[in-house]
Amino acid sequence: MRIARFSIDGNVAFGVVEGEPSDPDGPVLDIIKGHPFAEFERSGSKVPLSKVRLLPPVLPNKVVAIGRNYAEHAAELGGDVPDVPVTFFKPSTSVIGPGDPVPYPSFSREVHHEAELAVVIGRMCREVPRERVRDVILGYTCANDITARDVQRAEDQWARAKGFDGSCPIGPWVETAVDPADLAIMCTVNGEQRQLGRTADMVRPVEDLIVHITEAMTLLPGDVVLTGTPAGVGPLNAGDEVAVTIEGIGTLTNKVIKRD
Amino acid sequence: MRIARFSIDGNVAFGVVEGEPSDPDGPVLDIIKGHPFAEFERSGSKVPLSKVRLLPPVLPNKVVAIGRNYAEHAAELGGDVPDVPVTFFKPSTSVIGPGDPVPYPSFSREVHHEAELAVVIGRMCREVPRERVRDVILGYTCANDITARDVQRAEDQWARAKGFDGSCPIGPWVETAVDPADLAIMCTVNGEQRQLGRTADMVRPVEDLIVHITEAMTLLPGDVVLTGTPAGVGPLNAGDEVAVTIEGIGTLTNKVIKRD
Repeated sequence: MRIARFSIDGNVAFGVVEGEPSDPDGPVLDIIKGHPFAEFERSGSKVPLSKVRLLPPVLPNKVVAIGRNYAEHAAELGGDVPDVPVTFFKPSTSVIGPGDPVPYPSFSREVHHEAELAVVIGRMCREVPRERVRDVILGYTCANDITARDVQRAEDQWARAKGFDGSCPIGPWVETAVDPADLAIMCTVNGEQRQLGRTADMVRPVEDLIVHITEAMTLLPGDVVLTGTPAGVGPLNAGDEVAVTIEGIGTLTNKVIKRD
Repeated sequence: MRIARFSIDGNVAFGVVEGEPSDPDGPVLDIIKGHPFAEFERSGSKVPLSKVRLLPPVLPNKVVAIGRNYAEHAAELGGDVPDVPVTFFKPSTSVIGPGDPVPYPSFSREVHHEAELAVVIGRMCREVPRERVRDVILGYTCANDITARDVQRAEDQWARAKGFDGSCPIGPWVETAVDPADLAIMCTVNGEQRQLGRTADMVRPVEDLIVHITEAMTLLPGDVVLTGTPAGVGPLNAGDEVAVTIEGIGTLTNKVIKRD
């Protein structure tokens, strides 16, 4: 099931995506009563996807991200795979939705795309045992862990390099039914392929990451875990259209714009 | 003015602290109508401070923290003062209030106290010019940037070392009238002095930090900026009572407990 969050006529709602882009009238959204973090009913009230503005599919309280989780990408940055996962935060103020512009930050001259599988947490949890990890996950979406690479090199901790406004596009929706173990993940810039990998090549799979993170901290419904990026990261410039596609989930597209 | 957040009979409210601990009946709270992030009225309805449970004085969406901002402390950790401020996040799930227990984390054997001046943001802001910094600040409180030092040494990024549940006590209230430029800041453990410094010894003062952070990201009302710790950090053990006192603000006391 695909769950989107959207605005229409000034109201914000969640809806279940039905149908495919190839359908004559395209997909529709069956509006959910309430929110998707508990059992919910569909209202039966439907609206064409083409008539709404999609929003970030959840509003995370925090985004917990993992670095160097694909060996080839660790190598391209000149590093090894670390003994323990590199764990950092992206703040809620960095989160934007599908189609939202990414303002090029004023303090960087080298902004990179990083296509990532994003895990959306469904329930409050901590110290999750491995065999219970699937129970705390609502589903999966696409993310772009946009990074000011020059700032990342210059600063010991990555709060500014990876936490600036607009640096965390997520979407287009949460897919609840996909198995994350071996999905193709791709990034294109202006239609040209830049990154292509498979989630099976993660150094540590989703289960390990959730166990590791929740050993230290509580995750809340709507929190997001980014699982690292495959090789092929590279620069973005104002005017570029960057798209992250994950097999079985969908495509997240954003345009980089010059800051006002 | 001192603004506290508290619970009484299951309700949560803000109140203005009136009087001193030395008063015959102790200080009282004059309950605020609404919240302190806009102009507010006092209700005139008063309750003794001794009858309420103080909560974290704000519920930050994010805590942005600065490392190595006192030269002597940078030296004691074996490092220099960095060219650009070390900037990292502590998540909302790490925040606790005055009197709340700090559960000793299961994944560390070396947990340290770090007494810090905390800046409480009063309004949504980004790219704040230096001369406008005071306008975006609601006030100041005490914080303890509790750190799993062994984990900090072992992991490249500090999300787990400094982001675990209970690692960010703040309080006891927000003082809106104090000048942060030169305040004594002290940490005691079981009544014994461990840290003593003055905010005048910050490498970069509050204004610089807010300019630096908001160059990259939006701060929201209730967000908190931690400004670094003076020399003298050291271990905490289960059973210890740790207190951060800042001149003109107050004392934040927490007890370290064994995790269940």
